[in-house]
Amino acid sequence: MPTILILNGPNLNMLGTREPEIYGTETLQDIEALCRDEAGKYGMDVDFRQTNAEAELISWVQQGRDTSDGLIINGAGYTHTSVALMDALMAYGRPVVEVHLSNIYKREPFRHHSYISPAAQGIICGFGAKGYALALQAITRLV
Amino acid sequence: MPTILILNGPNLNMLGTREPEIYGTETLQDIEALCRDEAGKYGMDVDFRQTNAEAELISWVQQGRDTSDGLIINGAGYTHTSVALMDALMAYGRPVVEVHLSNIYKREPFRHHSYISPAAQGIICGFGAKGYALALQAITRLV
Amino acid sequence: MPTILILNGPNLNMLGTREPEIYGTETLQDIEALCRDEAGKYGMDVDFRQTNAEAELISWVQQGRDTSDGLIINGAGYTHTSVALMDALMAYGRPVVEVHLSNIYKREPFRHHSYISPAAQGIICGFGAKGYALALQAITRLV
Amino acid sequence: MPTILILNGPNLNMLGTREPEIYGTETLQDIEALCRDEAGKYGMDVDFRQTNAEAELISWVQQGRDTSDGLIINGAGYTHTSVALMDALMAYGRPVVEVHLSNIYKREPFRHHSYISPAAQGIICGFGAKGYALALQAITRLV
Amino acid sequence: MPTILILNGPNLNMLGTREPEIYGTETLQDIEALCRDEAGKYGMDVDFRQTNAEAELISWVQQGRDTSDGLIINGAGYTHTSVALMDALMAYGRPVVEVHLSNIYKREPFRHHSYISPAAQGIICGFGAKGYALALQAITRLV
Amino acid sequence: MPTILILNGPNLNMLGTREPEIYGTETLQDIEALCRDEAGKYGMDVDFRQTNAEAELISWVQQGRDTSDGLIINGAGYTHTSVALMDALMAYGRPVVEVHLSNIYKREPFRHHSYISPAAQGIICGFGAKGYALALQAITRLV
Amino acid sequence: MPTILILNGPNLNMLGTREPEIYGTETLQDIEALCRDEAGKYGMDVDFRQTNAEAELISWVQQGRDTSDGLIINGAGYTHTSVALMDALMAYGRPVVEVHLSNIYKREPFRHHSYISPAAQGIICGFGAKGYALALQAITRLV
Amino acid sequence: MPTILILNGPNLNMLGTREPEIYGTETLQDIEALCRDEAGKYGMDVDFRQTNAEAELISWVQQGRDTSDGLIINGAGYTHTSVALMDALMAYGRPVVEVHLSNIYKREPFRHHSYISPAAQGIICGFGAKGYALALQAITRLV
Amino acid sequence: MPTILILNGPNLNMLGTREPEIYGTETLQDIEALCRDEAGKYGMDVDFRQTNAEAELISWVQQGRDTSDGLIINGAGYTHTSVALMDALMAYGRPVVEVHLSNIYKREPFRHHSYISPAAQGIICGFGAKGYALALQAITRLV
Amino acid sequence: MPTILILNGPNLNMLGTREPEIYGTETLQDIEALCRDEAGKYGMDVDFRQTNAEAELISWVQQGRDTSDGLIINGAGYTHTSVALMDALMAYGRPVVEVHLSNIYKREPFRHHSYISPAAQGIICGFGAKGYALALQAITRLV
Amino acid sequence: MPTILILNGPNLNMLGTREPEIYGTETLQDIEALCRDEAGKYGMDVDFRQTNAEAELISWVQQGRDTSDGLIINGAGYTHTSVALMDALMAYGRPVVEVHLSNIYKREPFRHHSYISPAAQGIICGFGAKGYALALQAITRLV
Amino acid sequence: MPTILILNGPNLNMLGTREPEIYGTETLQDIEALCRDEAGKYGMDVDFRQTNAEAELISWVQQGRDTSDGLIINGAGYTHTSVALMDALMAYGRPVVEVHLSNIYKREPFRHHSYISPAAQGIICGFGAKGYALALQAITRLV
Repeated sequence: MPTILILNGPNLNMLGTREPEIYGTETLQDIEALCRDEAGKYGMDVDFRQTNAEAELISWVQQGRDTSDGLIINGAGYTHTSVALMDALMAYGRPVVEVHLSNIYKREPFRHHSYISPAAQGIICGFGAKGYALALQAITRLV
Repeated sequence: MPTILILNGPNLNMLGTREPEIYGTETLQDIEALCRDEAGKYGMDVDFRQTNAEAELISWVQQGRDTSDGLIINGAGYTHTSVALMDALMAYGRPVVEVHLSNIYKREPFRHHSYISPAAQGIICGFGAKGYALALQAITRLV
Repeated sequence: MPTILILNGPNLNMLGTREPEIYGTETLQDIEALCRDEAGKYGMDVDFRQTNAEAELISWVQQGRDTSDGLIINGAGYTHTSVALMDALMAYGRPVVEVHLSNIYKREPFRHHSYISPAAQGIICGFGAKGYALALQAITRLV
Repeated sequence: MPTILILNGPNLNMLGTREPEIYGTETLQDIEALCRDEAGKYGMDVDFRQTNAEAELISWVQQGRDTSDGLIINGAGYTHTSVALMDALMAYGRPVVEVHLSNIYKREPFRHHSYISPAAQGIICGFGAKGYALALQAITRLV
Repeated sequence: MPTILILNGPNLNMLGTREPEIYGTETLQDIEALCRDEAGKYGMDVDFRQTNAEAELISWVQQGRDTSDGLIINGAGYTHTSVALMDALMAYGRPVVEVHLSNIYKREPFRHHSYISPAAQGIICGFGAKGYALALQAITRLV
Repeated sequence: MPTILILNGPNLNMLGTREPEIYGTETLQDIEALCRDEAGKYGMDVDFRQTNAEAELISWVQQGRDTSDGLIINGAGYTHTSVALMDALMAYGRPVVEVHLSNIYKREPFRHHSYISPAAQGIICGFGAKGYALALQAITRLV
Repeated sequence: MPTILILNGPNLNMLGTREPEIYGTETLQDIEALCRDEAGKYGMDVDFRQTNAEAELISWVQQGRDTSDGLIINGAGYTHTSVALMDALMAYGRPVVEVHLSNIYKREPFRHHSYISPAAQGIICGFGAKGYALALQAITRLV
Repeated sequence: MPTILILNGPNLNMLGTREPEIYGTETLQDIEALCRDEAGKYGMDVDFRQTNAEAELISWVQQGRDTSDGLIINGAGYTHTSVALMDALMAYGRPVVEVHLSNIYKREPFRHHSYISPAAQGIICGFGAKGYALALQAITRLV
Repeated sequence: MPTILILNGPNLNMLGTREPEIYGTETLQDIEALCRDEAGKYGMDVDFRQTNAEAELISWVQQGRDTSDGLIINGAGYTHTSVALMDALMAYGRPVVEVHLSNIYKREPFRHHSYISPAAQGIICGFGAKGYALALQAITRLV
Repeated sequence: MPTILILNGPNLNMLGTREPEIYGTETLQDIEALCRDEAGKYGMDVDFRQTNAEAELISWVQQGRDTSDGLIINGAGYTHTSVALMDALMAYGRPVVEVHLSNIYKREPFRHHSYISPAAQGIICGFGAKGYALALQAITRLV
Repeated sequence: MPTILILNGPNLNMLGTREPEIYGTETLQDIEALCRDEAGKYGMDVDFRQTNAEAELISWVQQGRDTSDGLIINGAGYTHTSVALMDALMAYGRPVVEVHLSNIYKREPFRHHSYISPAAQGIICGFGAKGYALALQAITRLV
Repeated sequence: MPTILILNGPNLNMLGTREPEIYGTETLQDIEALCRDEAGKYGMDVDFRQTNAEAELISWVQQGRDTSDGLIINGAGYTHTSVALMDALMAYGRPVVEVHLSNIYKREPFRHHSYISPAAQGIICGFGAKGYALALQAITRLV
């Protein structure tokens, strides 16, 4: 059963409480449930994680080379600043999909640039929690 | 039956023949069929169009205010240069989803900026023809 | 009887319905009436047109060399992007006045630059529909 | 009887003698007469002043809150450099119209940016002395 | 008999009358005659067209894939702004030569960048109408 | 008894009336009283002044070399534009503290740069009138 | 008893030994003592921490939502690079004060921009250890 | 007897005491004496002034049109920020020479740009007080 | 018999061996022969030279004022960096044509700017050795 | 026996498997062996470490002040983004050498800037694993 | 007898013939004579040279360390592009004065930056041949 | 016996005397001796040269294609300005190593960019004369 590694970056553990007008009212647990559900439809398993640490994201990407078939990542704040995370994703060797809850192009200019995008197959942004479901569906075809 | 207006910008009529290593081998007719199929699943109709003319895109967006419930747009080359198209989309007043076949963030820098993104609810890019299906699914929830 | 060609660019046909907090509630028909009225006071005729097409604006400017004595233009979205329109205006050879309904300097930075301004005698912006009347008055002295 | 405060910035006292090919041959006295005349048509009084001092412009704007109903300003050289003047205008609380004799967008790039524009209702530029009359007319409706 | 498609962009229909100190006194008809003449020397036919519309240029480039063996283009104002035209030329698949009547590097900075150049085999600029003849000669070897 | 010179730049005389949502409701007189109070606690005298004139600020700084032991300055609009004021402060030769009522880093980009900061020992910004009290306390240790 | 969370970023554990000409000779322990002392005056408790890890700063800010009434942060090197830390502070929901020991505007240009400032109520910089005492005083009024 | 107007901008009244390592130990009185001396050699009179006020510099330039035959200006801090002063000099109509005591190209980048230079015949910088003597000599030939 | 001076800059002596995928397989001798041939057709002589030295190019341009009737130059690497060469060409006083073997607009961004272009009548680039023949033909009409 | 601390940043644990066309086929263990070998020749010991965590690199640098005589660092992705790491190196107080396996100047522009370089004595880049041996040799002389 | 080395860069050998409206009608021989004359007044000798070669300028500066007491340089086109010349001047170790015939700040933007200025004591520009005499006078005091 | 060509650019002939605080006290002769010594250890010969002339460096690189097996270059001032030298190195076809005596990243910003780096295998900078020995060692493996 193929496994999709779903990585969530800094502050996403606060979802539902943090600035709901930007990020919505669903919690990360809600999103994990939604992802398991969606993945089940395609006969896939998900390995769903969150961390505030750039290094942990990097290590998870590295380990994922052996334990996953595809990767969905919401890099949150590290999206815009982490060359190290980009390097890890470049070396992952399997499909990568980038997700953002909000439409980052409607926000501050420094959020318009992503170091993850050039390392991803595709990007889905602005659809809230629903974006994870779309990403799972997209990665199904790529895996 | 709700209708989704799907607009395709310049050169997308050449799909399948034009630089297939970037845009894939599916034709625009294939994508239209895929869209009808996908929309059918959600009980929606699609109004699928292509034009090389910026003004026609603008006029279709304007008319769509009365004849559609949501809009999916692949602006192609006008994505990066058309303030006029952005203005039309800003005034559309219903959900807008931006789609790109290729991952524009892996291409030339002038393709990294989109005038459409700030006028859209969300963006899906890099998944080829499949991106239209994802966009339809996404817009279902927004309509 | 001298004729003033008044050209309106993309999306101005939507006036009154489109984002009234920016553009006001008057329709383009209201503005045309206001212009005819104002022109009448100075014994001038107006040729009032709107199009969403950059090429049509250009062609109208070209034809206007034979059929008009002055030109008032609200380039809307093409104001900021059209070198081709600028070139047509540069070759027009009679007085040109640029009008904007809103104060473009209070809006997004990409609206602060106009390709039309260097081709115009003068600029009037931020006075809503009233700006057209001022432009007519201004052009009276220039014709 | 409503009063319009008309402020003229540095070097405008030299009008008529200074670079007439840019600024025209009318003197500031001519413009004041023209303004009184025009204001009379609308039943308004004008308080017409000129100074080379940034601080005096600022103080006049501040005092104008109690003694005027609207403000027309040709900031001349301070247009492009004075945040302090912009701040005073932002706090004025009544309609402000910016005027320039010449078309500043045909001149050096540093003249293309105005700190006054975001604090003004509208801008009129390039029509020489006539621009003051147009500004008076425009402000009539705003007051 | 091989055919060369020669496309002329906006305002080139005004040649001879528009700013002759920049563009010369020859009309577009003169240039077409010159091109037919020159092409005849190499046993080639020319399909010579002008339009003010970006979309029409794009469509002609697309159709030219079936009806021409090489393409000479003077994009005029669209040279500097049209990604859509660039995309069409990128997909043309046969030799493309860019021509400009004037030396664009002696003019305003925004004319120094061409979206057409990266899609062309070579560029000829600054030689007036004669540049078309040189382009025809150049394309002879490339076809 | 050591004296602290407290200089207030343009428009600060309008405090309490001007845009209270940015600058608060306390008047400059309130702030002066607060400063005298605070200075008294440290056995210091204050020389509290306001002017709209850049030159007066400069002259006060120059004179302050003989009549004060430290300087607190809220440069207001001149903060961002005055090299001449910076030069005067550089030559002051005693401690300088920069104060701003609002958090200038939450405002327009042109307010993010201060010519005063490199000439100051330290900066206090965003605490409203309270910031003056903090500045007095800070300068106590520096004098 | 209200608690103020005081967070210190990377390398601040080296204070007193690291480049004393920039950062002074006081150790972080000295600053903590000074803070406890100052907080005591206002009947407040302090929770004083240091870490070299960006993720730990972020997690502390998140936890502080439940355990503190205000937050003082010296982000050190992360000040200039961490969008993730900014996001955490944006979501903190209680007063935030930014402190810097040195005057960052006298140092390298990359230290002039702070991602923390837009998320803070106010900024205090350049007063060495004393700045923490000022920050505590400032936050007293905000809590 | 021809008169040269010599204008000195802000802070130059502090010469000899202000940062002597940059500006030297001579006072402005020393420089005036030196200038009178030098001018005497060429049978010229000097009208030597200093002010901290931008407006006063502007007014002196305006008045100098009637009372002087040439102008030497050390704009000090206003050199880099005053468009209004530049405009006055542009309209002066007689020879202008720009002087700086220090070599402004060895100092901060914002001192490398001068609004005075394009309005001057020539520039002399870096020679301390001696530069005024050179400027007088230079202007002798131009008057 | 009119003489055309044909100047070739640094590394062009390596043609045929140096990166043939960019510059082609023809040697500079081949190009010289081609030029003589082509010039012969128009009854012109060529003075064909190559040097790696910027100063030699400059001196040849200077001498060419007396010994040539027109100048064709491939500045190679100096194209992008030599103001001195530009100055020499500006003073040449007869027609100048710029040639490049490769299409410099398809290469690194620093090759997109030419100091030679503003000093030339026209530019021919991207046609390999053939470009010299075209340049000769073009210069025939200009001489 | 002097000890050299050799620090390796994020993703270097993947060496040999990650993009070997850029980073070579040697593993980090191979490089460690090579370093021990090389250090042995100079009678030095090495303390060789790798981490994906910015904070750990910083802490190791801090601790290295007591336990090492020199430091070689391959900052990998943090090279381009970490001010905090730069600060730690600035405070290290002993020789620092920066190493990169690949020639970062042949790669993406964001890799051309290093925050480590200004904190290092020297830089060695582009020689693969061999670069570590060169760095050891270089540091021998500096320790 | 002290010797002043006077170096003239590329194209200055063409003075008098080259663009006299910019550079005047005096030849370099005229300037040499003027310099000998002027130097004689101060009991100094001049070593006056011109070359089109950057390397020769550099070598002359290097040799001048033993054979001259001061250096006047008009770097012409190399002023704006030669780091190598700057380096030579930095190492010269005696007074350097930079001269330009024209006012470079009235010309193209690329002429506004000089690599020579930071290596010079002072700059004299815009006074034509007279500038050399002023430079000699200035250097007299510095030698 | 393989030969390494070692090229030294402008002003390096002055080593030992020129700014020793930046470049050290060793002369170029010392460095040549050190290089011969080092090369001898690896059974290699060195061809060691210096010139102030860009063209001579270029010609030496060209000739080196036949007479050397690798190239070490310290481009000095031409490092930052010479596209022509870069082109020569690109065409050299054998290993190239770039050396700098000083750490160019601690110096002026214009020294941070090297046209040589993209044409080199690797870079060694900041180790003084020792850097040449390291470069020789590095090139041994590459030859």
